Amino acid sequence: MSFEKKMEELGMKIPVPGKPAAAYEPGVLVDNMIYVSGQLPMVDGSLQFPGVVGETVTEEQAYQGARICAINALGVVKSMIGSLDRVERIVKVEGFVNSVQEAGYQPKCINGASDVLVEIFGEAGKHARFAIGTSGLPLGSSVEVGMIVKVK
Amino acid sequence: MSFEKKMEELGMKIPVPGKPAAAYEPGVLVDNMIYVSGQLPMVDGSLQFPGVVGETVTEEQAYQGARICAINALGVVKSMIGSLDRVERIVKVEGFVNSVQEAGYQPKCINGASDVLVEIFGEAGKHARFAIGTSGLPLGSSVEVGMIVKVK
Amino acid sequence: MSFEKKMEELGMKIPVPGKPAAAYEPGVLVDNMIYVSGQLPMVDGSLQFPGVVGETVTEEQAYQGARICAINALGVVKSMIGSLDRVERIVKVEGFVNSVQEAGYQPKCINGASDVLVEIFGEAGKHARFAIGTSGLPLGSSVEVGMIVKVK
Repeated sequence: MSFEKKMEELGMKIPVPGKPAAAYEPGVLVDNMIYVSGQLPMVDGSLQFPGVVGETVTEEQAYQGARICAINALGVVKSMIGSLDRVERIVKVEGFVNSVQEAGYQPKCINGASDVLVEIFGEAGKHARFAIGTSGLPLGSSVEVGMIVKVK
Repeated sequence: MSFEKKMEELGMKIPVPGKPAAAYEPGVLVDNMIYVSGQLPMVDGSLQFPGVVGETVTEEQAYQGARICAINALGVVKSMIGSLDRVERIVKVEGFVNSVQEAGYQPKCINGASDVLVEIFGEAGKHARFAIGTSGLPLGSSVEVGMIVKVK
Repeated sequence: MSFEKKMEELGMKIPVPGKPAAAYEPGVLVDNMIYVSGQLPMVDGSLQFPGVVGETVTEEQAYQGARICAINALGVVKSMIGSLDRVERIVKVEGFVNSVQEAGYQPKCINGASDVLVEIFGEAGKHARFAIGTSGLPLGSSVEVGMIVKVK
């Protein structure tokens, strides 16, 4: 089945990525692997759920934020190879959660990214990942997600 | 020499990995590279040395924890390719230490992972790595280790 | 154009990497990809700008530190393949900033690494990256940069 059709069915839009504000790329393709830069939960240029999880941001909000990050990463992939139907496998998710030190809820937040990838790609969406707590993220974001994707 | 025999000689058991609690995989194999998800120092389902290094956890405990993480990562590799004797090279170790901000002891903790890999694999175990401090880790773990492994 | 010549023109010296103090390598080469270990802003064995960004270290200092990290990473690459002219593409930059939690300035700091790579390699230097805040870095460094480089 077409992954792009699947996203349509699920009512998800694939965003067009903004240009990075510095001397790097949204993603780099080498040897059929796309390395996607760390994505923030931006919607139409506006950062969703900024702050620190456990203080001003809830786990559920960070989960939603991680979903947005993953969808933005797919926007980068599509912009590079034309169609998500060329995705062979989501290889790895790098999950960063701006969180208080005592907290162990990073996995629950990053599940937002993992869930959306499996909803769209099924078996091809099952990835390796790490989920860690950070002391600060770009623009004061509560969550950031990087990705490695095998394409055909 | 057989890496599996070497582990036996060293008195190390290769654990059978638990199932991840969410929509991701313990590891993904593409193009003869295994991307192993971030591993915690779990022994028989019980998290060892939880807490923050520099507060409730010592450097030596985190070192031991990192050894366990690395062995658990090898458990993932074995479960995916049948035998550790198919390991060609440990390519990279991603080392995360839940630590107070002033501290610079992340390398000493992650040496636990590096040491155990070289004990088992010798030259093939010598890897690139990063070692960083995190603000929180899954389940309140003091240490987490991800890995990239080339197999044949 | 020769990347090594370009560095000369820019007045940059390619450092000879020190030996890691533990059982890992400065870099690992597999399948024409070099995974460079996390580099610190060391100059002649002395750590530049140690501390926490937002407390004892300024954004501008961390930017300079990240430039040094990137140049040190290139020293590792050269030591492994003889000449930077064999670089095909800087694939990915892993940027770590030891920063206070409220801060969102990680990108500005890591731009130091991104800028120097594009100054030297032009289009071939444009990479994917993540930039995150950490709670502690090796030796109390304010910044650390890892890298993945495609070579020919």
